[in-house]
Amino acid sequence: MKSKIISLYVIALGAATPLLAQYSDKPPDVSPMPMKPEMTEIWEPQVKIITPGKSLGEAPSDAIILFDGKTLDQWVSQKDPSKPAPWKIVNNDHMEVVPGSGGIQTKMQFGDCQLHIEFSAPDVVESVGQGRGNSGVFFQNRYELQILDSYNNRTYRNGQAGSIYKDHAPLVNAMRGPLEWNTYDVIYTAPRFRADGSLDAPARITVLHNGVLIQNNVTINGLTLYVGLHTYPAAHGEDVISLQDHGNKTQFRNIWLRKL
Amino acid sequence: MKSKIISLYVIALGAATPLLAQYSDKPPDVSPMPMKPEMTEIWEPQVKIITPGKSLGEAPSDAIILFDGKTLDQWVSQKDPSKPAPWKIVNNDHMEVVPGSGGIQTKMQFGDCQLHIEFSAPDVVESVGQGRGNSGVFFQNRYELQILDSYNNRTYRNGQAGSIYKDHAPLVNAMRGPLEWNTYDVIYTAPRFRADGSLDAPARITVLHNGVLIQNNVTINGLTLYVGLHTYPAAHGEDVISLQDHGNKTQFRNIWLRKL
Amino acid sequence: MKSKIISLYVIALGAATPLLAQYSDKPPDVSPMPMKPEMTEIWEPQVKIITPGKSLGEAPSDAIILFDGKTLDQWVSQKDPSKPAPWKIVNNDHMEVVPGSGGIQTKMQFGDCQLHIEFSAPDVVESVGQGRGNSGVFFQNRYELQILDSYNNRTYRNGQAGSIYKDHAPLVNAMRGPLEWNTYDVIYTAPRFRADGSLDAPARITVLHNGVLIQNNVTINGLTLYVGLHTYPAAHGEDVISLQDHGNKTQFRNIWLRKL
Amino acid sequence: MKSKIISLYVIALGAATPLLAQYSDKPPDVSPMPMKPEMTEIWEPQVKIITPGKSLGEAPSDAIILFDGKTLDQWVSQKDPSKPAPWKIVNNDHMEVVPGSGGIQTKMQFGDCQLHIEFSAPDVVESVGQGRGNSGVFFQNRYELQILDSYNNRTYRNGQAGSIYKDHAPLVNAMRGPLEWNTYDVIYTAPRFRADGSLDAPARITVLHNGVLIQNNVTINGLTLYVGLHTYPAAHGEDVISLQDHGNKTQFRNIWLRKL
Repeated sequence: MKSKIISLYVIALGAATPLLAQYSDKPPDVSPMPMKPEMTEIWEPQVKIITPGKSLGEAPSDAIILFDGKTLDQWVSQKDPSKPAPWKIVNNDHMEVVPGSGGIQTKMQFGDCQLHIEFSAPDVVESVGQGRGNSGVFFQNRYELQILDSYNNRTYRNGQAGSIYKDHAPLVNAMRGPLEWNTYDVIYTAPRFRADGSLDAPARITVLHNGVLIQNNVTINGLTLYVGLHTYPAAHGEDVISLQDHGNKTQFRNIWLRKL
Repeated sequence: MKSKIISLYVIALGAATPLLAQYSDKPPDVSPMPMKPEMTEIWEPQVKIITPGKSLGEAPSDAIILFDGKTLDQWVSQKDPSKPAPWKIVNNDHMEVVPGSGGIQTKMQFGDCQLHIEFSAPDVVESVGQGRGNSGVFFQNRYELQILDSYNNRTYRNGQAGSIYKDHAPLVNAMRGPLEWNTYDVIYTAPRFRADGSLDAPARITVLHNGVLIQNNVTINGLTLYVGLHTYPAAHGEDVISLQDHGNKTQFRNIWLRKL
Repeated sequence: MKSKIISLYVIALGAATPLLAQYSDKPPDVSPMPMKPEMTEIWEPQVKIITPGKSLGEAPSDAIILFDGKTLDQWVSQKDPSKPAPWKIVNNDHMEVVPGSGGIQTKMQFGDCQLHIEFSAPDVVESVGQGRGNSGVFFQNRYELQILDSYNNRTYRNGQAGSIYKDHAPLVNAMRGPLEWNTYDVIYTAPRFRADGSLDAPARITVLHNGVLIQNNVTINGLTLYVGLHTYPAAHGEDVISLQDHGNKTQFRNIWLRKL
Repeated sequence: MKSKIISLYVIALGAATPLLAQYSDKPPDVSPMPMKPEMTEIWEPQVKIITPGKSLGEAPSDAIILFDGKTLDQWVSQKDPSKPAPWKIVNNDHMEVVPGSGGIQTKMQFGDCQLHIEFSAPDVVESVGQGRGNSGVFFQNRYELQILDSYNNRTYRNGQAGSIYKDHAPLVNAMRGPLEWNTYDVIYTAPRFRADGSLDAPARITVLHNGVLIQNNVTINGLTLYVGLHTYPAAHGEDVISLQDHGNKTQFRNIWLRKL
């Protein structure tokens, strides 16, 4: 406690001052001063105009086309990124995993993005559980959104189609049968790292599977691992998106991405 | 500081004890004990299976159909909820606002939800800015996702189509022309209130406009107001979804919702 | 696409209308209408006045005193909550764990809270690692903030003093020596559950250890477990705060709590 | 839909295969494989050891001492940062604002931090409302934690001591009388900006006033402004902490900071 002198300012204000004036510079029962509608209008900067796709699932004008069914030009081999993607184009319509050839990855690198991708289980249904139609989309080459033939095919809930592998099960199983194409529409927020390399904010992901919400802005808890607890790897920036070769003839088409 | 006796436990441990043993019960250079893959598999409970719509935009099997183009049975008048919705059905295909009749609202009440709704500007383009094709979707009858004919029609950015009205401008303008239908796919998280009525967590919303991300899990800052700052109203629970009559012949079709 | 008629409203507006008027109802280069300072003043409701403690660490006027050094009246036995807390009062100044008697818990139940608690390692330093001065504060009887004699006593980082046990290591080790008292100042946010029992928002915790930030609003990942992955238990409401008997004569004093 | 051939793998598996085997590679009623306690111990890296202050409020060993009562060496003038801080040292114990001399700011720049600061209203109580003991701590020279003599001195709730000025009122008013020193213990998280300059995450702040929680990890909504809506300024990095000259003889002592 300091030694101080308190002036009796009430006296200074004069005897006629109402009591309230001692501790308020405004009558407290007055509502906030009213505003006008224009005060909460924001005009600048103008919102950028883009052209949406003709129908849901089609790429809008500001998308990067990663695969149009005809060429793998946007992809390379994961085993040797200096080489072309080793998967095959079918009917100028879609691509198919060539089991044993290894995964493929984009030439470009990405962070936050909206991704649309379509996939189908192999035409011939074989095996069960994790052995059927297994592949995956790895964001920043590290965080896996599982692809599997989960139609009438039970496996562990955090490993079925639409799961963040061994992290988050999907909210529902919205898988189509093996003769049909599935869509994932993904809103992906990359992890943030501090200048010293430590994690600042984990990655988050929202996924619609065939238009149905299956991941609702969940936090990704770390690098996808088959064995053990997931934790975050060393700090990293934008990186490729990769598709997994898990030994099954999974098929893909219509892949596009918008940077966010 | 307390008066205590510290036993010289180092001595007690014996002279031959290596120094490290003084403050560790395990050699610190040992890695965590390895796990097995099965230890991070979670099998129960089984993820619920649903059937997605045949194409993007169609209702999945677990959706509530709020409007199928043929009947307004799921809606009532906002002016008098005991009366039928006063808007008109066109061609057993869509509904159209009847200007001056007032808004309409669902019979059912909702909180967190995934909503799909399709809308179109009036057939006849009239007026400018906020006067053209104006309507809105009010979640819980309070928080507005703006509907407007924002095709070649500038207005304030936080009031155009896809804005959370006077709160958040859309990330991009993905509006189609007035001869075409637009879709909103919305993931809405209702505000949470504490038992004492105070706000626990504000509402959040993600919106895809014609498949393009325009609101990315943004926080809704309060009750939508035309004039003044938005703040949260008194605590409330689930409530109706309402569509606004703003005097324009805005059209709607294919409205469905999944409770989250 | 619908069959529609677009009126050529530009013509309707007249030839003299400047081009801008076609798509704007306000010149887009006008800044927002200026406000006045009073428009952002909020006067009601008046902020509640409380009296802080005389010095840091002392209970403010709105705190519940859980332990004042003299009586265990606010606590009961964990083994049998119908019985008094089996720990002992020392010198009308603090309490000491009676090893083997079991933990103690508050009579009252709490959710969100600010908790102040002081603890000291046993007077006699014995054993190493997890065996020295081990106890813990369990929020809602489930989520443990570890207490340990972590002064010159290495153990696993997610199990030392100030850790959320087997969940989050402390940011730094701010432990005092065994002749001194330590303080934890905790801001605890309870988990939220939905009406259907599912987790809505996980618990979060901020901890200052002797005035030093050691947990910065981290997410608690589930029920504290000695073995296996932490996940959230069944939905629960407010619950007791408990202190662990881990077989060591850990000491406590000056425990108070403010409901948030 | 693609033209495909589905192999009738059930037949292939043989008639004796139980039904479950058709869609599962593991009996679904098996619990996860049990773990061992050591599997969730994390030993590396060792948590950094620091020495806390001798009592609450004293600087720990890893703090930067911004003001020890004796010298303003860590501060400069805001009007002209090439000049010394123009405020005065009193009794080698604290500093006092020199009204009209302008604010002062640290020489060093900071982002995320834990800040301890002590302040006192002027010895002589004069004026009312915002006119009494007004000053403020500006984090990154932009975001103000209000300082005011709020003891028996009503003003607008979002402008009293402990408010984030015109953004968030304090949870309670924990102000001491003008003969006493107050403490703020602050956990400040700086805003994050993306490479393109847009806001990635807003700033957040937690404040204890005389040990009492008054701001609980609230989001700072933008640059502090006296007039109008707060929004985020252009992207910026670490910056100075400044103390405001608002024309009152507010006093300060014992200021220290830990980088987070």
